[in-house]
Amino acid sequence: MSAEIKVTVWNEYLHELKDPAVAAVYPQGIHGAIAGFLGAEKDFSVRTAVLREPEHGLSEEVLAQTDVLIWWGHMAHDQVEDSIVDRVYQRVLEGMGLIVLHSGHFSKIFRKLMGTSCGLRWREAGEKERLWVVEQGHPIAQGLGHYFEIPQTEMYGERFDIPAPDTLVFISWYAGGEVFRSGCCYQRGQGKIFYFAPGHETYPIYHQKEVQQVIKNAVRWAKPVSGLPQPVDPFRPCPPLEKLD
Amino acid sequence: MSAEIKVTVWNEYLHELKDPAVAAVYPQGIHGAIAGFLGAEKDFSVRTAVLREPEHGLSEEVLAQTDVLIWWGHMAHDQVEDSIVDRVYQRVLEGMGLIVLHSGHFSKIFRKLMGTSCGLRWREAGEKERLWVVEQGHPIAQGLGHYFEIPQTEMYGERFDIPAPDTLVFISWYAGGEVFRSGCCYQRGQGKIFYFAPGHETYPIYHQKEVQQVIKNAVRWAKPVSGLPQPVDPFRPCPPLEKLD
Amino acid sequence: MSAEIKVTVWNEYLHELKDPAVAAVYPQGIHGAIAGFLGAEKDFSVRTAVLREPEHGLSEEVLAQTDVLIWWGHMAHDQVEDSIVDRVYQRVLEGMGLIVLHSGHFSKIFRKLMGTSCGLRWREAGEKERLWVVEQGHPIAQGLGHYFEIPQTEMYGERFDIPAPDTLVFISWYAGGEVFRSGCCYQRGQGKIFYFAPGHETYPIYHQKEVQQVIKNAVRWAKPVSGLPQPVDPFRPCPPLEKLD
Amino acid sequence: MSAEIKVTVWNEYLHELKDPAVAAVYPQGIHGAIAGFLGAEKDFSVRTAVLREPEHGLSEEVLAQTDVLIWWGHMAHDQVEDSIVDRVYQRVLEGMGLIVLHSGHFSKIFRKLMGTSCGLRWREAGEKERLWVVEQGHPIAQGLGHYFEIPQTEMYGERFDIPAPDTLVFISWYAGGEVFRSGCCYQRGQGKIFYFAPGHETYPIYHQKEVQQVIKNAVRWAKPVSGLPQPVDPFRPCPPLEKLD
Repeated sequence: MSAEIKVTVWNEYLHELKDPAVAAVYPQGIHGAIAGFLGAEKDFSVRTAVLREPEHGLSEEVLAQTDVLIWWGHMAHDQVEDSIVDRVYQRVLEGMGLIVLHSGHFSKIFRKLMGTSCGLRWREAGEKERLWVVEQGHPIAQGLGHYFEIPQTEMYGERFDIPAPDTLVFISWYAGGEVFRSGCCYQRGQGKIFYFAPGHETYPIYHQKEVQQVIKNAVRWAKPVSGLPQPVDPFRPCPPLEKLD
Repeated sequence: MSAEIKVTVWNEYLHELKDPAVAAVYPQGIHGAIAGFLGAEKDFSVRTAVLREPEHGLSEEVLAQTDVLIWWGHMAHDQVEDSIVDRVYQRVLEGMGLIVLHSGHFSKIFRKLMGTSCGLRWREAGEKERLWVVEQGHPIAQGLGHYFEIPQTEMYGERFDIPAPDTLVFISWYAGGEVFRSGCCYQRGQGKIFYFAPGHETYPIYHQKEVQQVIKNAVRWAKPVSGLPQPVDPFRPCPPLEKLD
Repeated sequence: MSAEIKVTVWNEYLHELKDPAVAAVYPQGIHGAIAGFLGAEKDFSVRTAVLREPEHGLSEEVLAQTDVLIWWGHMAHDQVEDSIVDRVYQRVLEGMGLIVLHSGHFSKIFRKLMGTSCGLRWREAGEKERLWVVEQGHPIAQGLGHYFEIPQTEMYGERFDIPAPDTLVFISWYAGGEVFRSGCCYQRGQGKIFYFAPGHETYPIYHQKEVQQVIKNAVRWAKPVSGLPQPVDPFRPCPPLEKLD
Repeated sequence: MSAEIKVTVWNEYLHELKDPAVAAVYPQGIHGAIAGFLGAEKDFSVRTAVLREPEHGLSEEVLAQTDVLIWWGHMAHDQVEDSIVDRVYQRVLEGMGLIVLHSGHFSKIFRKLMGTSCGLRWREAGEKERLWVVEQGHPIAQGLGHYFEIPQTEMYGERFDIPAPDTLVFISWYAGGEVFRSGCCYQRGQGKIFYFAPGHETYPIYHQKEVQQVIKNAVRWAKPVSGLPQPVDPFRPCPPLEKLD
């Protein structure tokens, strides 16, 4: 329990370079903003990685040193190499935590892990979102009240084509009339996955205290269990444990 | 409720052609055996399809006319074309039911829908399996008692690397000392999926009354809901339903 | 599958007698309105029962002849005898379906089956509710679109203190800013339970087509599985099924 | 995260006083054995309580100072006062963790929280039990391998009449031919509940390393989230958060 949690924040990092409006909100990139508030936690050790680095910054070494990976992508999901997606996928099944943010719902890695299209209803109108905590006793809800608001958001609405989450932590209300399962927990293999909806690139959502609290909580929840057993080789038969007639 | 349920039974159909011992158990192929007992139900309309047919027998037309697809494969999972897998996958998300049998746990379609490795522990020793019904009120358990036995089975044991099922209907006990989540229900997109473990090619398992009962129940459970709404185009924004300020 | 489903609609039936405004909306009582539209279905056989009848109209005989019980109560939850609650509870565990409507969230029977307080946030302001279908492939969602609206409703908001539903079918949006898990499926014992939020006594909600569709769908979904095995006596040991050393 | 977890171990403490065979296995009582190994953990602060103490040792003060309550009872479930059951129940809904062991499946508190009969199949034959870990990445499975064995156990078999657990961590295999969902997680209100099957009074099961590991893991998993919001009064309406027309 006492060891540092090693976090890697991955960002596509394209909007911030192309669009001055985005750069104004996130001058260090979205990954920089997230790494900033996570890095202030004593029990976290944080690094970043972006699409344009070799192997998208996600080498075998980096992933082997990652307890929890945070994923933000939007306009370049197709540019993420399948081999890197497979590598991340394998690590999640082996126990690495994965936190997928906002438009990451359409990333290759999230769709591969969910097994569904992950489509949703959406609209960019800067409307209000209110996130209701439906499991207040869940570790990811720690320190929040009954709800919190995001003054200006991109709307993400149902039906969200995901498997029903193992635990549904947040449901969002939008001024325009939709709802959304905006905080969803999954166990896949030995790894924990949390999808969290807030976070459009043109709004200062990752500067908001409650959003930061959720992501910090999610990192602590998603960290791997220690001492996992060696996997069984699925291509070899297992001898019986009891004597057969 | 009254219309016929259109079932397509898909089988790899290779073991039966290569191995006389298998052919002796399933002279019409495993698909033939399954189509045989399903075809005796008045509310089912049944056809079969096999790997060596063009498009593996799963053309757009066939799938469009399929309410529930049953899948049996083992030695040739890799020979199933990705384009056909994608077609089946799309149909499941649109509402077609899918029943995956036994070694189909390692089929491309099941792994794609589960998002996990679907690995498990196994052994061919002809040992006894006892399936315990843990949700007796579930439609798939209709007509069964507290448990039923398969005198000789291939052992499939935990840990089975699947997402926790939406509903767990059966847990198997094996003489050799293992347990298995042997009847698992999932909703993915608009489609229902049932994984059912029994069924090795060298044992007459699909000739057993209780196994046939489960598969018949599963077909009725997995049939699509009628009148599904047209999907929302995920690449177009949705106008607000309420007036925004 | 072909036999009639025997439905009993239970209503407290007090508001309608005391308040002319309620009587104007439901001149035959809420139970009468519900029995009316259910009775028009060919596969249903419908009766009603109310609080003021002997044994609240829920004698052993009536319950033994009930496949699905619908429950509407509000101002007199405490007047329901514990012995009758226990009788209904026992029947649900034995397989009888139970559909709990609106203010029935605070009924003795629902709280006993849920094991939680079933508290919620509420407000009577005649505001708009929009129910989003989050599992469109579920039998209870059959024939509905992506959402439907109730023009004037009592608001029921999160956090709703229930166990996470086995299947969450609807999430409601309210004009006043809340959300609600408004369609929740549970399996308890051999019985199926559906909680459905819409239905205040002063609004004509049970006259609305989509609400009627949901309740009809829920009856078909909640009907018992036939041929359930005799329960095991929990006070007697079971002999081993395998030879012990 | 760093504060001590306050654990109260509750035991009926009757078998040990009446039966020398039980006293020989648990000379300090079952509560003493459990408090012993828990007390060796630096992050736990442990006390015990037993049936024959005033208020069964579970005064308001004790419960207010309890983060996680462990429950062992068997022959005297009926002697636990309803008022104390209600007090424990209330505290669980407010966030206190509850770990129910073995024959506690039939305790008033567990049945009240589950909403089902909690019946099961059983036999005292000193047979072997093997617990398979079906969610190896769950915190309660930390440090365990693929399975562990209990050389002599009381058999508890399916069907176990519980709600499907939110997370199923262990499934047991028994030499006599049964299976059991032997490690079950639930969220109820703000509180976490873990049911763990092993532990008959005549076998030295709580002296076994793996069993102790599971209970220690479960305490850490079940501890309350800090900073929970004040509950909403369910008897007062809530004003709208948005302006209504």
